[in-house]
Amino acid sequence: MGWIIEENKFDSNNIVSNGNKFMTGNGYMGYRGTLEEYTKKELAACNLAGLYDRQGDSWREPINAPNALFAALSVEGRELGIMNMAPIEHSQSLDIKNGIHKRCTVWDTEYGKVKITSERFVSLTDVHMLCLKYTVSTERTCNLAIKTGIDGDVWDINGPHLEEYTVEQEKSLIKVSALTQELKVPVAVAEICERTFEAEESIVKTEKSIFRNIAFKTEPKVQYTIYKYASVWTENDGSKNVLEDCCLSILRASSMGYEKVYSEHIEQWKDRWEASDVLIEGSDEDQLSLRYSIYQLQIIAPMHSSKLSIPARGLSGQTYKGAIFWDTEMFMLPFFLHTAPEVARNLVNYRIRTLEGARKKAEFYGFKGAFYAWESHENGEDACSDFNVTDVFTGRPVKTYFKDKQVHISAAISYAVWETYKFTGDVSLLLNGGAEVILECARFFYSYAYFKEDKNRYEILDVIGPDEYHERVNNNAYTNKMIYYTADAALKTLELLKKEYIKDYQELIAKLDYSKEINNLIKFKEKLYVPEPDENTLLIEQFDGYNRLEDCSLDEVRSRLINPREYWGGGHGVSSTTKIIKQADVVLMLYLFKNEYSNEVKKANWEYYEPRTEHGSSLSPCIYSLLSCEIGNSEWAYPFFVKTSNVDLTGDSKQFAGSIYIGGTHPAANGGAWMSAILGFAGLKVENGEISVNPNLPERWKRMAFKIIVRGEKYLVDITHDNFQVTKL
Amino acid sequence: MGWIIEENKFDSNNIVSNGNKFMTGNGYMGYRGTLEEYTKKELAACNLAGLYDRQGDSWREPINAPNALFAALSVEGRELGIMNMAPIEHSQSLDIKNGIHKRCTVWDTEYGKVKITSERFVSLTDVHMLCLKYTVSTERTCNLAIKTGIDGDVWDINGPHLEEYTVEQEKSLIKVSALTQELKVPVAVAEICERTFEAEESIVKTEKSIFRNIAFKTEPKVQYTIYKYASVWTENDGSKNVLEDCCLSILRASSMGYEKVYSEHIEQWKDRWEASDVLIEGSDEDQLSLRYSIYQLQIIAPMHSSKLSIPARGLSGQTYKGAIFWDTEMFMLPFFLHTAPEVARNLVNYRIRTLEGARKKAEFYGFKGAFYAWESHENGEDACSDFNVTDVFTGRPVKTYFKDKQVHISAAISYAVWETYKFTGDVSLLLNGGAEVILECARFFYSYAYFKEDKNRYEILDVIGPDEYHERVNNNAYTNKMIYYTADAALKTLELLKKEYIKDYQELIAKLDYSKEINNLIKFKEKLYVPEPDENTLLIEQFDGYNRLEDCSLDEVRSRLINPREYWGGGHGVSSTTKIIKQADVVLMLYLFKNEYSNEVKKANWEYYEPRTEHGSSLSPCIYSLLSCEIGNSEWAYPFFVKTSNVDLTGDSKQFAGSIYIGGTHPAANGGAWMSAILGFAGLKVENGEISVNPNLPERWKRMAFKIIVRGEKYLVDITHDNFQVTKL
Repeated sequence: MGWIIEENKFDSNNIVSNGNKFMTGNGYMGYRGTLEEYTKKELAACNLAGLYDRQGDSWREPINAPNALFAALSVEGRELGIMNMAPIEHSQSLDIKNGIHKRCTVWDTEYGKVKITSERFVSLTDVHMLCLKYTVSTERTCNLAIKTGIDGDVWDINGPHLEEYTVEQEKSLIKVSALTQELKVPVAVAEICERTFEAEESIVKTEKSIFRNIAFKTEPKVQYTIYKYASVWTENDGSKNVLEDCCLSILRASSMGYEKVYSEHIEQWKDRWEASDVLIEGSDEDQLSLRYSIYQLQIIAPMHSSKLSIPARGLSGQTYKGAIFWDTEMFMLPFFLHTAPEVARNLVNYRIRTLEGARKKAEFYGFKGAFYAWESHENGEDACSDFNVTDVFTGRPVKTYFKDKQVHISAAISYAVWETYKFTGDVSLLLNGGAEVILECARFFYSYAYFKEDKNRYEILDVIGPDEYHERVNNNAYTNKMIYYTADAALKTLELLKKEYIKDYQELIAKLDYSKEINNLIKFKEKLYVPEPDENTLLIEQFDGYNRLEDCSLDEVRSRLINPREYWGGGHGVSSTTKIIKQADVVLMLYLFKNEYSNEVKKANWEYYEPRTEHGSSLSPCIYSLLSCEIGNSEWAYPFFVKTSNVDLTGDSKQFAGSIYIGGTHPAANGGAWMSAILGFAGLKVENGEISVNPNLPERWKRMAFKIIVRGEKYLVDITHDNFQVTKL
Repeated sequence: MGWIIEENKFDSNNIVSNGNKFMTGNGYMGYRGTLEEYTKKELAACNLAGLYDRQGDSWREPINAPNALFAALSVEGRELGIMNMAPIEHSQSLDIKNGIHKRCTVWDTEYGKVKITSERFVSLTDVHMLCLKYTVSTERTCNLAIKTGIDGDVWDINGPHLEEYTVEQEKSLIKVSALTQELKVPVAVAEICERTFEAEESIVKTEKSIFRNIAFKTEPKVQYTIYKYASVWTENDGSKNVLEDCCLSILRASSMGYEKVYSEHIEQWKDRWEASDVLIEGSDEDQLSLRYSIYQLQIIAPMHSSKLSIPARGLSGQTYKGAIFWDTEMFMLPFFLHTAPEVARNLVNYRIRTLEGARKKAEFYGFKGAFYAWESHENGEDACSDFNVTDVFTGRPVKTYFKDKQVHISAAISYAVWETYKFTGDVSLLLNGGAEVILECARFFYSYAYFKEDKNRYEILDVIGPDEYHERVNNNAYTNKMIYYTADAALKTLELLKKEYIKDYQELIAKLDYSKEINNLIKFKEKLYVPEPDENTLLIEQFDGYNRLEDCSLDEVRSRLINPREYWGGGHGVSSTTKIIKQADVVLMLYLFKNEYSNEVKKANWEYYEPRTEHGSSLSPCIYSLLSCEIGNSEWAYPFFVKTSNVDLTGDSKQFAGSIYIGGTHPAANGGAWMSAILGFAGLKVENGEISVNPNLPERWKRMAFKIIVRGEKYLVDITHDNFQVTKL
């Protein structure tokens, strides 16, 4: 109970969403929840983290590796797949406790019933490794053939990304290697396929693929099983010889045998859950959806590398260019900080490592300091296009301002660095690049700001806040507040270093030529305009002029849509001239800075903005949930928790922005589900290493229990409606 | 020769454009160049200057008066109009020397040939008066009926604008009176119709109209003539009883008789031409088109009232809400300054009178001082909508920024005041409100500006320059330069008043609470950023980031249109992300400030921007013409002169922006034609009352001669290729 995601019938309409829902992965790669016989048509993909490629003038995107788990069955010479014959029984399931994907399909053929069962996993032990156990049986004797091997003809949005393929067989191994188009990075996939039965095996090669054809005659009701061990390596993994490393991986696995490889893998999962599981008593649905959210975060966590971060759609494909957004810092980082601080550190390190890219972006736009990429690729370059939406009426690309105006990204990164430092108390983060990131972000904001003389204040003009539907606004409350935070964090960082690490301080000031900047920052912080609650209404205006926009209902705005795929924002969007917003904006600010605002202000703004929020972003519901808990209203919070924790289970999230495919998993919402539960309902707060809880469980929940790790110490938190305790383990 | 505009065949496709081309008017009203039997379907209209009305939620617009010149013929009971039977002969003509519209139409009916001739004018003597002489003859005897009277069912874009109609006959008079919907302003039209032949006359009334039915039997080839005297009054004209004033007007005319009324009218035209005619020898086409341009300016000039200015489409209809734009100050004022300074003063007075509206607009947007209306109505209120374009693909209104971001309007008005003062030397303009206008505009700009500390300069952010296709740009060169001019003019105004009119100075400073503002303006002027020519290319970047836009050809951009009525600018326009601009922008700046830039800079920018200019505004060609003359290249200039001087003759100007009708006359282009000829080819300059000419005639022109009036003195300027002279008259 509480660990299995399952579907018991086949519906071709769900192929894409099931590809997301039944994902497996290990932070190195994500393997979509497709069936073995699927090809690129059904969006089968083995998506690699952090290896990007550009094909022609298209957007850069992460590559999908050749698919080594492909397997298709033929009966008496005719292909038998779920797409060409309806099964009489079918189930697909995911064991999230152990990271195991299973399927079982039975067809009633002219040769009697034929059954496939399979079990596969993406190894947590060896991140390059994929394993598949694939079993067939027939009701009657007949001639079967299993076509399996490495399918190199992969799904791409803007591909193909690989070229110069080498396709070869060497004894029991088959291999595909190739180079990425743009940077010529070697990528290799190899496979061994073992079986316990006699068969005729032949090899079929194409330009990009290599398959085994395993032909045999069945005995009735006998199970014929193959075991596939496959491995993926790229030169980016530090491999000198990617093919050789592939072969070593799979030969080791093969020598260990499937059961051993399997048990090592689930042992790792046991550790992961040991650290991160959250027990909920009182609602099986919530238990499952929250665990599933945690599972999604685990399968994309870059545990193995300090160079990677987590893309906005995880490793579920190439949506949003596989790029890193503020989602990671603001919505996923808290989970890792509390349960796997080494992953949190990796995530922050990614931003430290890509500071140079942020400097280049700032310079390009005529500013100083660090303007981080809105959609960040491996070296911090911005993958975001100036035309990030396609107009559904004309098919033309639409100029958007996400890249150049969503300056709050640099604040989110400063926030992540400073909050990680505060949470962990680990100054090494600051000394090893973290301080530099904060200082350069603060410098950027000062150079971005303008001074308004007649109001004697700095203003932040021409930005997009979290609510992307309103472009190029002035003095977005969230953005200004986050910039204030950044300036403050920069000054505190300087104070800390000056006081305790004077040599580092001096080196940094000299390296960054920062001495003049300090006075600028002091004045900047002092005179930066941050919109305050209105004295009468207690409302904070989202940006200058928001109050004058058309105040109409969400339904009214929705009714103005002519095409369901229309983009709601930008120059012509139905929301742009109204108060309808995409996602939590002022409410996000109030949550992040909850100690600075009264409950009355939080409540007034929650009640004002919630009906005006489309929740068109999966980042939105969790924030409304969290602020409700701050107000002390878990019943307001609960439906938003349900929404955020089920985002990848229901499969009914937005698939298109304009005519651009934006499907995939939603790790920020997954992180948001964890935040809603732990930081919201449990009311967990960690300050200066001190833990407090202020629980506010939903009525239906009877008990919550979870572990966290703070500054090296593990704690168990156990909460009921009547009682709670925090136990050091 | 050189005075008659004529068309000799009927083409129903030209009904709308001929309505503009054959306009008559007198500054009080414009009567469209329609035929007598036309109704609102053919856009017949008698458009009144400065009387605006709002119907429901629609845009405000000027009203069209009931049409008192309606006349339609019936032959043997069947209506005979140009729309229901093709004529065998037809001509429509306009005598621009005398402001007389004529038509002659012959039909071949089953009763033989039937001929109508008509002659009409809008009186320059009594601006309320319209006269029509309408003659019919038939080849054979037959029964005719002329239906004539006052057609109250008028053309409106956002009407109807009149209500509470009273329709009555009183002896020989027929009358229609009504109230405007919004402000309940009484409007009246009355008519007398005289004839020299026997007929049966009956009256037909409808809710809004009153007609005479004049029935008679013809003798072959006898001419039957009616004379109509009609008059229009509104309470805005200072009338206490609009119907009575109408009746007085027409009874006086009737008692004088048609010939006398006619001759008084053409006597007035003689005076107008005496002051403003420009003789061109060497090109009959150019002679006619330039005279036609001057004619268009004369028929809309508010000679009779100091409360009015000139709408952007003259008095040709309700396009652009009949509102006053910067067109008047920047493109029409020079003509009046040089030929009719009393009209120039009226135009400037309109802005002085509407200063309070500009103050309110500034306050609404959170600024100080005077932010003039982009589309100004009678009290300076902004008629411009926030949604001034309709998307052709969705039919939805599109958010535009003309109203709130085209701040250069306040600079254009300061420019008009200060240049008028400089031209006339008349300090009374400054003392009677002109100084206050300049000071309040400068104050507005200071409050609009931001200081950029790291660049130590003021910047002007988030504006639209003359090139409206690029919205919300920063540091538009034209705008910044004009703001600099405004600050400078304000400081000079203060200096002048302080030195010579200390009491006025003190009163003004006290009234405006301006003493602190002076230091602000001094610093503002000193540190305001005005983009300079690039050292290498000599190019001035139109606004921050223009250089990074897509550099593709006008043809390429045009080829991207999907719908010919698409708006090129704004959020989704085909130009918005490219370097293609709507109209002269940097080039306008270089022309206005020609003494401050080298010929090399002018030439480089002309050559760069011209191929990138759509000339989608009729304000554009004249400026390219003028700057070419500054460079000394009249051959570059000539085709632009031809374009601007023919804009209302060819009838092929833009009729739509999105799905909004924008047809009508183009007085700014008419003014531009005069500027191109006089300030361009003749190279006339007037500084401190001193006249200089620096002629550069197009090759084909043999001679130019014209008069101007400067500070009360009249001068004749006579130019050939070899010689020129300026003679004081």
